[in-house]
Amino acid sequence: MGTESREVRLASRPQGAPRAENFELVTVEAPEPGPDEVLVRNLWMSVDPYMRGRMNEGRSYVPPFEIGKALEGSAVGRVEASRAAALPVGTYVMSFLGWREAFVAPASRLQVVDVSEVPAAAYLGVLGIPGLTAWLGLFKIAGLKAGETVFVSGGAGAVGSVACQLARLHGCRVVASASSAEKLEYLRDELKVDYAFSYLDGEPLEHLKKAAPAGIHVYFDNTGGPQLEAALYALRDFGRVALCGGISNYNTPGPGPRNLTVAIGKRLRLEGFIVSDHLKELPAFLAEAVPALKAGKLVSRVTVVEGLDAAPGALMDLLHTGAGNIGKMVVKLGE
Amino acid sequence: MGTESREVRLASRPQGAPRAENFELVTVEAPEPGPDEVLVRNLWMSVDPYMRGRMNEGRSYVPPFEIGKALEGSAVGRVEASRAAALPVGTYVMSFLGWREAFVAPASRLQVVDVSEVPAAAYLGVLGIPGLTAWLGLFKIAGLKAGETVFVSGGAGAVGSVACQLARLHGCRVVASASSAEKLEYLRDELKVDYAFSYLDGEPLEHLKKAAPAGIHVYFDNTGGPQLEAALYALRDFGRVALCGGISNYNTPGPGPRNLTVAIGKRLRLEGFIVSDHLKELPAFLAEAVPALKAGKLVSRVTVVEGLDAAPGALMDLLHTGAGNIGKMVVKLGE
Repeated sequence: MGTESREVRLASRPQGAPRAENFELVTVEAPEPGPDEVLVRNLWMSVDPYMRGRMNEGRSYVPPFEIGKALEGSAVGRVEASRAAALPVGTYVMSFLGWREAFVAPASRLQVVDVSEVPAAAYLGVLGIPGLTAWLGLFKIAGLKAGETVFVSGGAGAVGSVACQLARLHGCRVVASASSAEKLEYLRDELKVDYAFSYLDGEPLEHLKKAAPAGIHVYFDNTGGPQLEAALYALRDFGRVALCGGISNYNTPGPGPRNLTVAIGKRLRLEGFIVSDHLKELPAFLAEAVPALKAGKLVSRVTVVEGLDAAPGALMDLLHTGAGNIGKMVVKLGE
Repeated sequence: MGTESREVRLASRPQGAPRAENFELVTVEAPEPGPDEVLVRNLWMSVDPYMRGRMNEGRSYVPPFEIGKALEGSAVGRVEASRAAALPVGTYVMSFLGWREAFVAPASRLQVVDVSEVPAAAYLGVLGIPGLTAWLGLFKIAGLKAGETVFVSGGAGAVGSVACQLARLHGCRVVASASSAEKLEYLRDELKVDYAFSYLDGEPLEHLKKAAPAGIHVYFDNTGGPQLEAALYALRDFGRVALCGGISNYNTPGPGPRNLTVAIGKRLRLEGFIVSDHLKELPAFLAEAVPALKAGKLVSRVTVVEGLDAAPGALMDLLHTGAGNIGKMVVKLGE
């Protein structure tokens, strides 16, 4: 006698922006846990831009989602039935096992999280993969140093908002871009960035010149497109670019930066990275981030949509530049 | 009573491709050498693509040439009069003191070169700044390792031809592009590259797929433009790009690579560099390259133009993609 669970499956592969018909909601039955397995009920589920890439067919850095199977994303849930001694009922766990309400899995595929002093949803955002991504990009890829100036595009997004905060905590000057007045307010008032601008309001390069007349040392690129081009002009000699996301090109490819040649004379380094190569760094990151969150030096802000049925729409919003979320977009499935 | 010397000066700054009117030939008198100075008569003088950048006004990684002053480039000459004990008459020296026939300089600004077993002109090419540039780009910037596959655009040029050879000596598979049938023959027959193609003959990406079906590990970029775009597609995961030159964009900026986003998923690293940051590596490079040249494992090929008056035309040719030289372009001023 199993447990009923709904899941979101990929119905078909999108051409361009995903549409509702590319998803389907299906009810299945989760079995009883076997030896060393547990039954988990998800409470929070993550919606991430990189999922768009996995909706395409063909080789990528992660395997594509399969048609007729549940999409995959991070989730935080609670153990409801257990045949694994290490994970008693009530334990909170993080997993990457699909957009579904409940599931059975071996204990070895789950990561225990401590929610005694921090909200569980933070493990999908500031303390989760987005936070780790921001930390890696700034410090491991771009080698950001105290006193430097960094520009973060998509600064109000899941990764960008953590990047802005970690850079400030590290003693850096932070310039950030976003699209809406609400996001700019968030960047200025809550994240305390030094200069925030809308990339839709005038030329990004003019803002960068005003924000950092002597140039920027590091560009944390969440967007690609015209902001990357502006950043290449604004970077100082020996500047570094962490290539983290290209939302502007996820649905359709756009023109490339016409000024990449400046990377020669300025000795710039541009480096792409993906967080899944560096998951072993999670403990080192959490050792910095958990105390900072508890001490109120990091802000955990989530945009919440309710219920599994709302997940596809949330992903479509997230990919539609200009609309979308502030902080991390999460789906709430239970208490 | 000085020594008569002609020099090539910048008469005006070019818009787009340089024209004859941007240069002027002027006769001056070099003074007698003072204490610790020598009089040098140049025998060979270098013509390099990067000189185009210095013809522009404004900030760059090297100061612009000044209007009314001699252009600067590498030269090899012989001491004709000496008041410096370390540089007796007859010593061969390398210098960066201008496109001129003779000059007086402090001994400290000259680099002695050994021409006993190698031709003096090699110090402007395979043993000089172009050779050092190739070595730095392959090994220090791109971290090329034995057994890897490297693509060198502009493979028949001064830097490219050394890069092709050093990579082969290092046990790598070498793919190279050039523009003319003559250059392709040179790449295949003399430099022994594994696959040579004309970037004007079909799509560069199709050639790269044929030459390296499993992808390339390193791209040594001498051109920018469409070949950079093709290389980004052809690079394997964790591939590296040494951004060395962008001849296709020196005179006029072109479109950028539309696919830079692939650098994220493939974790590519693109890094610009300029040789003048690394001149201290010259001895380490020469320790490898001089024995290789003496042993016949490196080919030193130069395209020679005769006489100072021919230098501006040689530079214009070099910048006119499709025409130009094989190997290093040098101006012969004397025996």
